[in-house]
Amino acid sequence: MIRIGVDAMGGDNIPENVILGTAAYCASCISDTEVTLIGDKEKITEACQQNGLNPGNFCIEHASETIGMGEHPVESYMKKTDSSIVKGFRMLSDGRIDVFAGAGNTGAMSVGAVYGIRPLTGISKPCIPIVIPCLDGTFTVMLDVGMNPECKPDSLYQYAVLGSIYAKEYLKVQNPSVALLNIGAEEEKGSMALRETYKLLSYTKGINFKGNIEPREMFLSSKADVIVTDGFVGNIVLKVVEGVYDTLTAAGMKNEALEKFNYEMYGGTPVLGAGAPVVIGHGASSPLAISNMIKKAADTVRIGLIDKIKRSFENYGN
Amino acid sequence: MIRIGVDAMGGDNIPENVILGTAAYCASCISDTEVTLIGDKEKITEACQQNGLNPGNFCIEHASETIGMGEHPVESYMKKTDSSIVKGFRMLSDGRIDVFAGAGNTGAMSVGAVYGIRPLTGISKPCIPIVIPCLDGTFTVMLDVGMNPECKPDSLYQYAVLGSIYAKEYLKVQNPSVALLNIGAEEEKGSMALRETYKLLSYTKGINFKGNIEPREMFLSSKADVIVTDGFVGNIVLKVVEGVYDTLTAAGMKNEALEKFNYEMYGGTPVLGAGAPVVIGHGASSPLAISNMIKKAADTVRIGLIDKIKRSFENYGN
Repeated sequence: MIRIGVDAMGGDNIPENVILGTAAYCASCISDTEVTLIGDKEKITEACQQNGLNPGNFCIEHASETIGMGEHPVESYMKKTDSSIVKGFRMLSDGRIDVFAGAGNTGAMSVGAVYGIRPLTGISKPCIPIVIPCLDGTFTVMLDVGMNPECKPDSLYQYAVLGSIYAKEYLKVQNPSVALLNIGAEEEKGSMALRETYKLLSYTKGINFKGNIEPREMFLSSKADVIVTDGFVGNIVLKVVEGVYDTLTAAGMKNEALEKFNYEMYGGTPVLGAGAPVVIGHGASSPLAISNMIKKAADTVRIGLIDKIKRSFENYGN
Repeated sequence: MIRIGVDAMGGDNIPENVILGTAAYCASCISDTEVTLIGDKEKITEACQQNGLNPGNFCIEHASETIGMGEHPVESYMKKTDSSIVKGFRMLSDGRIDVFAGAGNTGAMSVGAVYGIRPLTGISKPCIPIVIPCLDGTFTVMLDVGMNPECKPDSLYQYAVLGSIYAKEYLKVQNPSVALLNIGAEEEKGSMALRETYKLLSYTKGINFKGNIEPREMFLSSKADVIVTDGFVGNIVLKVVEGVYDTLTAAGMKNEALEKFNYEMYGGTPVLGAGAPVVIGHGASSPLAISNMIKKAADTVRIGLIDKIKRSFENYGN
């Protein structure tokens, strides 16, 4: 039995969206999983009733506090010790759940993934990847997409390693190619941090470095299995795509190719480098995205992704 | 007569694309403009002949050197004194042309706009805006989109001022609203530079600051007349939009709403804060984009945009 803890108070329109998403997941899930909603019991019960759901059907772990989307990540994580996020990480750390998934304050989730449970040996900053589906059916892993808005070259270098392992284990790519997201193909382009990372990756054996890649080339077909960027730029890329998708959908367009850009479908993504399975959804999570986030959480445990990364990372470069 | 200098050696597939774009412009332009192609006379002549055009129909200013897209901006600008870019800025500075337009090495064009001609008084870093057309017919000015990949709060602050003036003069918006591009609406989000800029803009009289804006909200309708970001992130946003547009076009989609994202149509953008009219196109410029870049160059002189900015900036905050 895979025990999944879900932050009922994380994301937009809470706890309603999380409850509807969990109900949708449970209606379609394989019976080897058990979901615990972590959050304000009263609000969860009320939202269930308002949506015609029986609260008795859910396992609920009461958390009296909620970390809001706008709160300071470290401060709120330290102060709100009975919040759904802190409680989720405590349950994970205590072995009461096998994976913790939440679509709340990304900063606070990041603090939990770094301080609530320990990062894997050798990893300074865990990060969040996303798998981008290209038009021609190929895939690209982009990371970080939101955990660390400011990255020095050593972190970007670690993302290249983590992304390579993810592509290998998850997308079954042998010797995955790595590119650096930049505003030009030339080595000279971009910030000083990017120029230094470029050199670092060029000189590293074991990383199949292909140089810089521009966002323009990312979506048609996979030019690199792994695209490395800092969490600010990665998050901007994600949200631009969402913005264009929303706009074209609002204009009445409907098309299989356009649906490739519906990143909401993907729902959640594991934190790479964290010491235990953590899946982060994004703030504007619809019930559909929450349902997919919970599926991803179950898959992450099933695949044994974290252990695979851990073993590979320890041997990386040897 | 508006005298327009065009870098014949700037952009992709040169000089062919520039020549085809110039020919297209000349075929449709108002007779109050005169275009001079600046670049390698032999190559220009050859490309004309290969495309069935009479080289005698073009004014050509020979430049024996070319600054490539991958070259170091400052170094190449300093060394290649007979390059098309350096020559263009010299002609502009000497008053032989009224505006210089080029789609080549953005870094070298930036060096020219800063050192080849002087920035306007009080402006440390000239920048490039783009006008984003939203689905509902409204517009947003985003800046910088490529000149300065790394920006401190004082530069971002200046972009807010420059963007406000641009929106006022160009889009005829009274009291334009300004937002900061970020990965969340909350004041706490993003890099330290963004958090400091947020405070700076909040406390400044004369700037109609609306807080942070996420890229997701940018395209449906204009939530702010001006969106401020650094040149790296702005350029990434531009190229993500282009990438999605290219992909959907490749998938056979055709639609009026989708065409809004065809930023190639816009072709070029004036450098805000430069002391004389300079229009920069982007590297992947098709003949259509080059033609539109030349149109924008002519318009910039016709509108007297630079003088208007100069006067407004000197009085700004008074």
